[in-house]
Amino acid sequence: MNIRMVRYILGWVLRFESIFLCLPILVSVIYGEREGIPYVIVAVLCFAISWMCTRKKPEINRLCAREGFVSVSLSWIVMSAFGALPFVMTGEIPNFVDAMFETISGFTTTGASILTDVEALSYTSLFWRSFTHWIGGMGVFVFIMAVLPLLGGTDLNLMKAESPGPSVGKFVPKVKDTAKILYGIYILITVVEVLLLLLFGMPLFDALTSTFGTVGTGGFGIKNDSFASYAPALQNIVTIFMILSGMNFTFYFLLLRKKFSQALKMEEIRTYLAIITITGVLVCIFTRQHFATVGETIRHSFFQVGSIITTTGFATTDFNLWPQFPKTILIILMFIGACAGSTGGGMKVSRFIIVFKTIKKEIGILIHPREIKKIQMDGVSIAHETVRATNVYIASYFMMFLLSVVVLGIDNLDFTTNFTAVAATFNNIGPGMELVGPTSNYSMFSPICKVILSFDMLAGRLEIFPMLMLFSRRSWKRL
Amino acid sequence: MNIRMVRYILGWVLRFESIFLCLPILVSVIYGEREGIPYVIVAVLCFAISWMCTRKKPEINRLCAREGFVSVSLSWIVMSAFGALPFVMTGEIPNFVDAMFETISGFTTTGASILTDVEALSYTSLFWRSFTHWIGGMGVFVFIMAVLPLLGGTDLNLMKAESPGPSVGKFVPKVKDTAKILYGIYILITVVEVLLLLLFGMPLFDALTSTFGTVGTGGFGIKNDSFASYAPALQNIVTIFMILSGMNFTFYFLLLRKKFSQALKMEEIRTYLAIITITGVLVCIFTRQHFATVGETIRHSFFQVGSIITTTGFATTDFNLWPQFPKTILIILMFIGACAGSTGGGMKVSRFIIVFKTIKKEIGILIHPREIKKIQMDGVSIAHETVRATNVYIASYFMMFLLSVVVLGIDNLDFTTNFTAVAATFNNIGPGMELVGPTSNYSMFSPICKVILSFDMLAGRLEIFPMLMLFSRRSWKRL
Repeated sequence: MNIRMVRYILGWVLRFESIFLCLPILVSVIYGEREGIPYVIVAVLCFAISWMCTRKKPEINRLCAREGFVSVSLSWIVMSAFGALPFVMTGEIPNFVDAMFETISGFTTTGASILTDVEALSYTSLFWRSFTHWIGGMGVFVFIMAVLPLLGGTDLNLMKAESPGPSVGKFVPKVKDTAKILYGIYILITVVEVLLLLLFGMPLFDALTSTFGTVGTGGFGIKNDSFASYAPALQNIVTIFMILSGMNFTFYFLLLRKKFSQALKMEEIRTYLAIITITGVLVCIFTRQHFATVGETIRHSFFQVGSIITTTGFATTDFNLWPQFPKTILIILMFIGACAGSTGGGMKVSRFIIVFKTIKKEIGILIHPREIKKIQMDGVSIAHETVRATNVYIASYFMMFLLSVVVLGIDNLDFTTNFTAVAATFNNIGPGMELVGPTSNYSMFSPICKVILSFDMLAGRLEIFPMLMLFSRRSWKRL
Repeated sequence: MNIRMVRYILGWVLRFESIFLCLPILVSVIYGEREGIPYVIVAVLCFAISWMCTRKKPEINRLCAREGFVSVSLSWIVMSAFGALPFVMTGEIPNFVDAMFETISGFTTTGASILTDVEALSYTSLFWRSFTHWIGGMGVFVFIMAVLPLLGGTDLNLMKAESPGPSVGKFVPKVKDTAKILYGIYILITVVEVLLLLLFGMPLFDALTSTFGTVGTGGFGIKNDSFASYAPALQNIVTIFMILSGMNFTFYFLLLRKKFSQALKMEEIRTYLAIITITGVLVCIFTRQHFATVGETIRHSFFQVGSIITTTGFATTDFNLWPQFPKTILIILMFIGACAGSTGGGMKVSRFIIVFKTIKKEIGILIHPREIKKIQMDGVSIAHETVRATNVYIASYFMMFLLSVVVLGIDNLDFTTNFTAVAATFNNIGPGMELVGPTSNYSMFSPICKVILSFDMLAGRLEIFPMLMLFSRRSWKRL
């Protein structure tokens, strides 16, 4: 393990965190809140540590795959630990485990909260809390790469660990340029949503925090009822932007390059939109009696479907009170998740496509044992490695999921709560069902369960392996 | 599709069913029950149809893989349909969907029941119900092959479809001899258990039906409280025989061949016993306050753990009332299931071993991308095909599971009930939690949900692909 290089990278992550912390400090100045002081202290602390770690670039700056993975996992943990400090220091979340849970939930764009009264927070902390979604959505390393020529040719190993999906799509030959394009699109979507929300009468602070939660597919709200009290038009805008943020960014890249037909033919996008349409309609049918008008039914159904499949986690209604069928649909959508290469979580639509094609192929082999067929997506053969990695991913996902649900059993809450709590954190959604439903929160879990769920959030965001590698002895061995 | 050959095979299956039906007829004679008459009628009917189908052996008796799979799936469905008829005709289960559910549950060794009062059944039907477990446990084709040189060299394709586990272990070069050895061991275990139960004072009828339920890992009881009212010694005997029946039969074969050290080194057996020991102890600790003495705690804990991991489904206590942690352990054990090559269901211990090794290997690849390592089990490299098939199996398992849980939502029961109902049927266990807990049954489900659960039982027993192939257009195409 190239410890010096890992420390150097961690240093840069903290440098950027100190810069990010300037935004809530600005908010505290605007609102004249004393809560800004801890943010200043933490920003200075981050900068100081960063300065010490990055003073000297290590001579050996080679970064192999495992070092890339370990660096990314550690960075996310360190970033969350420092991000949690202001909450503890302002006294708004006095317990460090809770503050860590909340911050990990922010950075991983989960949106699960241990706060029973969100509205009691200062504007400063509300802003920071939502802003972590925006940072985590596209990824902090993608950001660093976009602005800094950090590591020469080995950036890809870092990006691989942070980017969601079965394979990393590089738009252009250089990682740096790909990162720039990604953040360019991300910022564009952010700006458009903020403007639209403002246009339809949302206050600026609400528009900013809601947008961070939407485009990062996070889900932290600034109101106790999440999104229920906003005007229907605002809810519809958020529905659309949640769905847009859950799309594979390759789609936007193709649009920018005017390759419209290629963009519209993307299997993942088509499947994703088809799933939303079909499940949305089914949910409409089965929740019709819960709402006064057809329009209201459609609005709430698609908001909830969009919120869950993109793993955002906003809510306009307490879907925990719905009948079991639409509720179960939402639970399944939690697992499917958004597209690969989006800001959303879950297992990703493309993995489901690959799995379905693999199953079909396997049946084909059983029917004609000598038949050799390659699995294709968007007309291109999928690398054997990708198929294998997808299957292994799903198997590991399954194992970690079961293990987490078992351990959560020690709190003696009901099975649905435990199951959906793991589903909602592991898939980076936020609200689950029953005791962790959209009108509730995660405060009743014991510290040990909060740690498990925090781990699940990180494992979900970084797609399991980078987190698992922290526990592999071989990761830490010197080469 | 070689329709003639499939018909010929179905004919032979019905021939054997008519022979199997003689046993409940014998019981009806002994107890002087009129319920025996429908059994005679169905036996004659099976024989007549069988005679028509097998009059002439088809000229082309080649059977390719897909035909083997389709034959096995169809055989299990046809066998269950005819096996359900007596229940309808005696009026004990008047509804055909219910009777079919009960019979599929029997043959697939699930043990899930729609009966609210088992004790109201005639001895004849109770016997048939339990005997279906014994037939299904080792498999009807394995039985046919053991006694009949049916299809020359193509038997393996039938056995592949019926034998549980990631790969078919042939003890000896000839399928017929392997089948004979398997049934020999099976009958030996059966006889020993019956004798032991008789020795400890169980009435003969109870001893026979309990043994069928144990060695077939079925779980149909003849009492409403399952196994709760039997003496502790009898419960302990059943615990041991459940665990023995869940072991890979290769273990016994090795013992018979006096290869003791090889037998004791089998990774699957070791892992299986380790899981039982560890989870058993954990359950003891967390259920201690539910029982009067330590001895009672151990007895009930290990009975339940043994019953669930082997997918039998007997119960000596209402584990639905346990705290969430031991309850969740039981739910996880439902998924793990017994060993491959046993009479038990679930995903099988060996698949879990393969998956864990694959995950470890995948992490190894991430750490050292150029490293090429083969996965080994019992010191032998596992074929690449087996690893791939295991991963695809788990992915398909996952998909079918989620789909079933969604559809069950239409009955508007709670999530835990639906989830554990699918877990308990798909893994061929029987009882789940909440409304389908051990003191309850499956009668409250709507017919459509009963059909789904019946399908899940068959898919679980035949390990998904044979059932899926019924829906593949290519299975039915002429070659």
